[in-house]
Amino acid sequence: MGRTSDARNKILGAATTLLEQRGYSALGVAEICTTASVPKGSFYYFFESKQALALTVIDEHWASQRRQWVELLSSDRDPLRRLRDLFQATEAVQRAGQRKGGLVVGCLFGNLALELSNQAEEIRSRLQEIFEAQIDLIEQVIVEAKDLGQAGASVDAHEAARSMVAQIEGRALLAKLLNDPAQLETLWRNSLDLLQVPPQVRAALD
Amino acid sequence: MGRTSDARNKILGAATTLLEQRGYSALGVAEICTTASVPKGSFYYFFESKQALALTVIDEHWASQRRQWVELLSSDRDPLRRLRDLFQATEAVQRAGQRKGGLVVGCLFGNLALELSNQAEEIRSRLQEIFEAQIDLIEQVIVEAKDLGQAGASVDAHEAARSMVAQIEGRALLAKLLNDPAQLETLWRNSLDLLQVPPQVRAALD
Repeated sequence: MGRTSDARNKILGAATTLLEQRGYSALGVAEICTTASVPKGSFYYFFESKQALALTVIDEHWASQRRQWVELLSSDRDPLRRLRDLFQATEAVQRAGQRKGGLVVGCLFGNLALELSNQAEEIRSRLQEIFEAQIDLIEQVIVEAKDLGQAGASVDAHEAARSMVAQIEGRALLAKLLNDPAQLETLWRNSLDLLQVPPQVRAALD
Repeated sequence: MGRTSDARNKILGAATTLLEQRGYSALGVAEICTTASVPKGSFYYFFESKQALALTVIDEHWASQRRQWVELLSSDRDPLRRLRDLFQATEAVQRAGQRKGGLVVGCLFGNLALELSNQAEEIRSRLQEIFEAQIDLIEQVIVEAKDLGQAGASVDAHEAARSMVAQIEGRALLAKLLNDPAQLETLWRNSLDLLQVPPQVRAALD
């Protein structure tokens, strides 16, 4: 093995899984290295600290999730259908996680936000940026829906997008607590209410 | 000092504060005892383990919060106003926490749900019971609102209550992450949308 990018990827893979399963504080560098099958020296070659590793895990997780969000939310489908695609993909991710490890792991960003935001300023500010980026991506779709008359004219697109991100996090929390990805199923219906989608538009969507 | 109920209360007080600030895994029994100014022997006289202590903190926190919820949600005010009272009280609790310690601590149950539900079955099941009890308390008020024609007839009271608890958790997460209790302000307006409250009822509430 040794100090190859392969070792770096193994550390990142092991750290992501362990962070999702057990959170940050319960985790030690030694355990990450054992799980990744790399010597401890490799760890400190690639990462200055456990926190630096966590930041890298967060960044890579968001880079991958962001690609998915942008693809779904900028497709050529109707704006409301794009939102539904996003919610369905979010639920599918949790179902896949449950199939793989037996347990719903929830949202890595939400988990770390609640565990760490009052303890690690650098992690807090990174997670703030990610949630604001999520809100912006959803806001653009709501603006499009409003322009087409598919959402209430009085809806504040930015605030509604913020509520949707909050909803996703709240539902992911219940899904993890109950080990039940179906907790995410209502995101779509609730969003139609939050966006004050007119009845005839709803009927056409079903 | 010694093995008096005073020592038990000191341990519980210190544990609650530390759990809110830093979560469960980052916390040791020795630190709890130092913060509480009690000898370690006292700890194990009152609590079998750190997990047993956490369960007691959860139970006492819920006993107190439940009293507040029941008082607010069974007052003789209009059902929707009672919901607003609950949301305002929830925000006030976070504002008070921020004034006291400088940081929004979020919801203790939500924090522990994300940190621990996949690691400690007893804590998971206790938190499940608490969230289900919260959902039931809110559901009763929604049923009353529906009976009075203040919420849409097609609204599923149980599902709407579940969405409100999810919303509270999602907003508490943003409030903690952004250290901004105002993130909870929109709970009320979003709930009016989720409950499909007719325009004339909304106008009378403002």
